Amino acid sequence: MRETREKTFVLAPDSFKESMTAKEVCIAMEKGLRKIYPTAGYIHVPMADGGEGTVQSLVDASGGVLHQHEVSGPLGQTVTAQYGILGSGTTAAIEMASASGIHLVTKETRDPLRTTTYGTGELIRACLDLGIRKIIIGIGGSATNDGGAGMAEALGAKFLDAEGRPLARGGGVLDQLAQIDVSGLDERLQEVEFIVACDVTNPLCGEYGASRVFGPQKGATPEMVEQLDTNLSHYADVVKQQLHKDIRDVPGAGAAGGLGAGLLIFTQAVLRKGIEIVIEYTELREKLIAADVVFTGEGGIDFQTKFGKTPYGVARAAKEAGKPVIALAGYVGEGIDTLYAEGIDAIFGIVPGAADLDRILREGPENVERTTENIARVLKLGLLS
Amino acid sequence: MRETREKTFVLAPDSFKESMTAKEVCIAMEKGLRKIYPTAGYIHVPMADGGEGTVQSLVDASGGVLHQHEVSGPLGQTVTAQYGILGSGTTAAIEMASASGIHLVTKETRDPLRTTTYGTGELIRACLDLGIRKIIIGIGGSATNDGGAGMAEALGAKFLDAEGRPLARGGGVLDQLAQIDVSGLDERLQEVEFIVACDVTNPLCGEYGASRVFGPQKGATPEMVEQLDTNLSHYADVVKQQLHKDIRDVPGAGAAGGLGAGLLIFTQAVLRKGIEIVIEYTELREKLIAADVVFTGEGGIDFQTKFGKTPYGVARAAKEAGKPVIALAGYVGEGIDTLYAEGIDAIFGIVPGAADLDRILREGPENVERTTENIARVLKLGLLS
Repeated sequence: MRETREKTFVLAPDSFKESMTAKEVCIAMEKGLRKIYPTAGYIHVPMADGGEGTVQSLVDASGGVLHQHEVSGPLGQTVTAQYGILGSGTTAAIEMASASGIHLVTKETRDPLRTTTYGTGELIRACLDLGIRKIIIGIGGSATNDGGAGMAEALGAKFLDAEGRPLARGGGVLDQLAQIDVSGLDERLQEVEFIVACDVTNPLCGEYGASRVFGPQKGATPEMVEQLDTNLSHYADVVKQQLHKDIRDVPGAGAAGGLGAGLLIFTQAVLRKGIEIVIEYTELREKLIAADVVFTGEGGIDFQTKFGKTPYGVARAAKEAGKPVIALAGYVGEGIDTLYAEGIDAIFGIVPGAADLDRILREGPENVERTTENIARVLKLGLLS
Repeated sequence: MRETREKTFVLAPDSFKESMTAKEVCIAMEKGLRKIYPTAGYIHVPMADGGEGTVQSLVDASGGVLHQHEVSGPLGQTVTAQYGILGSGTTAAIEMASASGIHLVTKETRDPLRTTTYGTGELIRACLDLGIRKIIIGIGGSATNDGGAGMAEALGAKFLDAEGRPLARGGGVLDQLAQIDVSGLDERLQEVEFIVACDVTNPLCGEYGASRVFGPQKGATPEMVEQLDTNLSHYADVVKQQLHKDIRDVPGAGAAGGLGAGLLIFTQAVLRKGIEIVIEYTELREKLIAADVVFTGEGGIDFQTKFGKTPYGVARAAKEAGKPVIALAGYVGEGIDTLYAEGIDAIFGIVPGAADLDRILREGPENVERTTENIARVLKLGLLS
């Protein structure tokens, strides 16, 4: 009566932040499922959504390698950043936050007038030096508001004042920008495709621009916000006039303090939703074909999940393929009902009882394992369809 | 290909202590399941294991009535206790703790030399007055160590010293017991069957007796433990000599400070495991016949669950009937692996994330509802057997 063919599980979770990488979640999921389906097939697709963990995910999913590289941090300090070379060997993955992220400044030192994306440019240069043909770049979590000028400077562009002197770094001095000299810009940029993971549609300037929307969380006072917005507007004017690129109102130009704009100006960049990039470069769709059931998950699942988070993206892809999806989360919040219609068939919390966050973060793997085992036990019943 | 017959779910949880009664758990479970199986049948069997909540469960499961009755508390204070009349109208259910429980004394006032089961006897008398033919009595949670002498006194027995004077109440004076006069004992006790829910096998006296094992948690100092044990031993001697009943080493005689012994001496009592009594009087086995899937649960599930707790008892009964069982718990602890072999097919925590106990207790119903809904979603997949 019943099928006895071996089952295949595709395990495609995001990381559980501060608890497990996506790969560790895959391992714990398999452990739990294997107790009930010992001879099933398990395909690990550690995921991310373009934010933190994206490089790790793409490296893990493709069998690639992580590299460390010393760069200038957002305030010029030395920072050991990382980037990944995917299994193909010709594609790199970068998170701007690794070089220029908000976590690299303290509450006391944050200063969006001075923070620079220079280190992100250095990371890009390191990739160019390896002969990379394609760079996937996640731009979430920035400490900067410099329109990507620092990044371009690291790659050979010159930002000069009216007297032809190089500007200091940071968005606070862009009002003095008189000339952008791209004669020294790294020529290899012309040959390299940039895939920018960008989930926001903010323009560079104005009411919904980088400075006004994201400036305050980087430490900008209301006065700084005005100054930064005016400076980015002037920057857009100079770019339009001298480089003949009108990026001011391109959706996403305002991401990462205008690094979105910078990448559009100085590189061959395409902005895409983070989760879509990860789905493509992990080859999730191809891997889904074999799946009987797909497991996904993230540290938290709630009403925000449908705004481009991993479980949502995985569910959409799985639904296209007609595959059931079960999601796990360390925190199951409000508004999950809408996710069922989007292709998540069931959602389970993994927490075993009243406990503080520290303990829950520490015991993530065993909680994932126990929960997936018990879900497998219910799947095994297979009674009630 | 697939069965389309309507499904039937039997919902047989214990209470989630301090959060939901068993009946409230049933209601929340049905709410969750009904979202996925709107036209299924739902049979509520609110359960208990002979401990706290047993009266409520038996009343709820049988469509009975709760009664309030003023009695003497463990220290003589007035206490509003309750008992239940089951739907049949001829069977009562009592919890001794309602009249004589440890929760009725404070840490400062607890005194196992003085605490008495008199109020429990008053509850029994109230049942007799209603013409009850059978009394189910749960004896967990006692504050007493009086061998059930107080209970018997309330029902007409007289405990006299060598001069023929009535003894004061409490286990501390039983050394002065010279004569037990049962001439005034309520005659209706001869016609009434007592089913005692008792999960311990302790004898009345000695190393594993009532005083030594349970005395300390009722406030007995080492000296008091010796005194109480000696007194109960003397009590057993007098009972044997004058009433020709040798209850000293009957398993369970030492339960509830010797109330187990008292019930064996003065009533037509049979001691049984609590969960078995509840299974019988809720008619769980009969209700299981229709079940496609059985849901059970309790506030906590861990290695102790197999020592007679509700989810274990339900699972055993369901296994006999060949029915799958899924358990929910507010806290999933260590050692649950052994439960799978005992008939619990799957166990799920209901907690949605890091949270303090107060909040978890408060949000019990919504957490049960969400979890059962999602289990139903997996059942509905019905793919992988």
